[in-house]
Amino acid sequence: MANKIRVTIWHEYRHEKSEEAIRAIYPNGIHAAIKEFLDKHDDLEVRLAALDDPDQGLPDDVLNNTDVLMWWGHMAHHEVNDALVEKIKNRVYDGGMGFLPMHSAHMSKPFRAIVGTSGKLLWSDDQHELIWNVLPAHPITAGIPEYIDLGTEEMYGEPFMIPQPDELLFISWFEHGYVFRSGCTYYRGRGKVFYFQPGHEACRSYYNEYVQKILYNGIKWCAPNDFGAPMHNCDYRKAIL
Amino acid sequence: MANKIRVTIWHEYRHEKSEEAIRAIYPNGIHAAIKEFLDKHDDLEVRLAALDDPDQGLPDDVLNNTDVLMWWGHMAHHEVNDALVEKIKNRVYDGGMGFLPMHSAHMSKPFRAIVGTSGKLLWSDDQHELIWNVLPAHPITAGIPEYIDLGTEEMYGEPFMIPQPDELLFISWFEHGYVFRSGCTYYRGRGKVFYFQPGHEACRSYYNEYVQKILYNGIKWCAPNDFGAPMHNCDYRKAIL
Amino acid sequence: MANKIRVTIWHEYRHEKSEEAIRAIYPNGIHAAIKEFLDKHDDLEVRLAALDDPDQGLPDDVLNNTDVLMWWGHMAHHEVNDALVEKIKNRVYDGGMGFLPMHSAHMSKPFRAIVGTSGKLLWSDDQHELIWNVLPAHPITAGIPEYIDLGTEEMYGEPFMIPQPDELLFISWFEHGYVFRSGCTYYRGRGKVFYFQPGHEACRSYYNEYVQKILYNGIKWCAPNDFGAPMHNCDYRKAIL
Amino acid sequence: MANKIRVTIWHEYRHEKSEEAIRAIYPNGIHAAIKEFLDKHDDLEVRLAALDDPDQGLPDDVLNNTDVLMWWGHMAHHEVNDALVEKIKNRVYDGGMGFLPMHSAHMSKPFRAIVGTSGKLLWSDDQHELIWNVLPAHPITAGIPEYIDLGTEEMYGEPFMIPQPDELLFISWFEHGYVFRSGCTYYRGRGKVFYFQPGHEACRSYYNEYVQKILYNGIKWCAPNDFGAPMHNCDYRKAIL
Repeated sequence: MANKIRVTIWHEYRHEKSEEAIRAIYPNGIHAAIKEFLDKHDDLEVRLAALDDPDQGLPDDVLNNTDVLMWWGHMAHHEVNDALVEKIKNRVYDGGMGFLPMHSAHMSKPFRAIVGTSGKLLWSDDQHELIWNVLPAHPITAGIPEYIDLGTEEMYGEPFMIPQPDELLFISWFEHGYVFRSGCTYYRGRGKVFYFQPGHEACRSYYNEYVQKILYNGIKWCAPNDFGAPMHNCDYRKAIL
Repeated sequence: MANKIRVTIWHEYRHEKSEEAIRAIYPNGIHAAIKEFLDKHDDLEVRLAALDDPDQGLPDDVLNNTDVLMWWGHMAHHEVNDALVEKIKNRVYDGGMGFLPMHSAHMSKPFRAIVGTSGKLLWSDDQHELIWNVLPAHPITAGIPEYIDLGTEEMYGEPFMIPQPDELLFISWFEHGYVFRSGCTYYRGRGKVFYFQPGHEACRSYYNEYVQKILYNGIKWCAPNDFGAPMHNCDYRKAIL
Repeated sequence: MANKIRVTIWHEYRHEKSEEAIRAIYPNGIHAAIKEFLDKHDDLEVRLAALDDPDQGLPDDVLNNTDVLMWWGHMAHHEVNDALVEKIKNRVYDGGMGFLPMHSAHMSKPFRAIVGTSGKLLWSDDQHELIWNVLPAHPITAGIPEYIDLGTEEMYGEPFMIPQPDELLFISWFEHGYVFRSGCTYYRGRGKVFYFQPGHEACRSYYNEYVQKILYNGIKWCAPNDFGAPMHNCDYRKAIL
Repeated sequence: MANKIRVTIWHEYRHEKSEEAIRAIYPNGIHAAIKEFLDKHDDLEVRLAALDDPDQGLPDDVLNNTDVLMWWGHMAHHEVNDALVEKIKNRVYDGGMGFLPMHSAHMSKPFRAIVGTSGKLLWSDDQHELIWNVLPAHPITAGIPEYIDLGTEEMYGEPFMIPQPDELLFISWFEHGYVFRSGCTYYRGRGKVFYFQPGHEACRSYYNEYVQKILYNGIKWCAPNDFGAPMHNCDYRKAIL
């Protein structure tokens, strides 16, 4: 890992181009809005990538120089190349890259492949959401109060068909009777994954100061260790003793 | 373990004696109401025990012949003898007894000592509760739908200062903005623990068919294995090889 | 689930055909040797399936009528059809089928896809293995002593690049300096997975009485719940309240 | 948390006084040897405390100004005051203090009370130990190779009657047939716990560079978050909404 954590924010980036109402909220795209608050941190070096960029935004030299990959996708999950998904997965498993899927990325190919899930859940109309902090000792919840009043968000509900998280950080309450495991961490191979639920394109969650702090904390937590000796995976060994 | 699972329902049994309104709901005590529906199962053998019984209801010959100990306590947690708590803990740790604390037993001495928690949580007035099933593959959730509409219960809310459960089975939604990890399992020593939240003395949760099924499933899950070779704990061993 | 648990033992079934020394150990194949001891249990109904059978042994009517799928593969992992792997994964995730990969199935396509792992590990020559029971309260370890002296097995060693198990049941000691998480459970979607390490084709582990008991216990644990209400995954919901 | 992490190393400090052979290894005590290598880190402020000090080394003003408490005890566990154990437990649960028990502290009162365990295990004579790194993505294993050849240590073996760790970092191999979960983390209340096994008084493990790095990493991981809003535990709340 370089001195700065090299973050790439991958974004589907379609809603903002095709819908006036979404563009009004995120004029340069959700990814640019996230970059704006991350850029305030000296220890990060942030790049943008989009589905419609060459190589779907992630040519090898970008992917292989990314420490933490953030991911936002929604209506074009199926357009992401399977070969790219395989590369992303291996970069997490073998290279230790952090992966940070946001909101509707619960159904994205890389999240499902890396973590091992169908990604399925219930969903409903936008409604009032409160996010409860259930693991206050975790570095990702540092500085976060007991609960965040997020205002209006798209409802995502249980049963969320994910593996039991290694650490369950947040549970959300939704106005009309639903709950959701909205912040979950997973160790996978040499890498770490943090899923965080807020971020519907029609809502303003990425302007919320606590959402911003959680994403920053999440990047720091996800960033790869400087590993010790190289890991010689799946190879033959002689007797040590 | 005998052919039948030997269940002892320990109950503080004070509210029903001192409060007319509570007695109207559970005329012979919460423990008797639980025994009534458990007695329909041929594979269980159920006994009652109460705080004001001799030896606080758990003389050695009862405790040492109990496979699963259910526990309901509320306003008299501090009256339970520390020496008895120590015996219960050791019967779980070394003897493999199942322990099934219900509702306000989150602050009971045995739950806190066995699991390792302050037991603290938020609480509030009775309100509408929905219990969501988040681990449908677990034996305790067998036959339980996506959610249970419990009607009115006392609100228990996060942050609930428990260890991360080995398995999180249920998350509850409460009407006025709260969520709660309402069904949690823990492996401890040779034993198993299942905490389940419904059961305020002024509510009717123990008459709910799904609550009854969950408690029955919980007993089955908690019951001790017939262990293999005796476990010679903490003793000296020669070289095996 | 039918009254009996419907088990299908899928086997690559190549070593026994091509190598005289292996055929001497398992004359009718590893799968037939496993079926032989499972058939002693009245609560199981056991079928065999092999890679070289039509539809690679798992036509839809077999797969969709399997409660627990056991899997042994080694040198032909890459021959298994991706479309079949997808079906198996979905049958676990959505249908609740149990999946029980054995030995070198750590690198099989279905194990890696279902659980979310590269499956990588270290390996070495056959050597003395002891299997330690580290979760004596779990139903899969019922009747299993503190440790099993397995005699000679192929060495599999850490780091094993698996997700942290939901329950770690066994840790193995190998003569020449290695250790291995040799019994691991995972909840995935509506299904359950149990990986168990012994079973090199050149060793006699499937004739070991404890290995046999663990596999039987594993099948019982893996078998699907009779679920409650149907799970309407990933669909739109109106307000409950 | 102050700018520096305030570490207190609590040591029973008896072996070195009564046994010449032990004093030869750790002339000023194990705690002093640990302090020596920790003092090289600018971000730590390290104090020593011993059982025979006034207030057993932990008067309130020391305990309440400790961010991470390291603990080494062996033959005098029973001499530690129960009231002090209660204070330590509450400082972890409510104050978020990190707790780092080493070696024979597996049977210490605070470890057993905080985590919820009998602490029991097997033990044997000193023998060759290798420590395998099974979670290379964790911050505590940063810079640690696949395995550490520790040379001779006292054998601690499974079954170790601990709760399943939140994160299992290390598994040890011992020469004569034993394995051990030698590095384990636990979230407890607002605090974090890291147990690490090496450190028999007659061995030289605290001079091993990797043991030193792991302890430093462990302190960093254990240190409390700067929490958000104060946590009003176990109190009454009005409706939020």
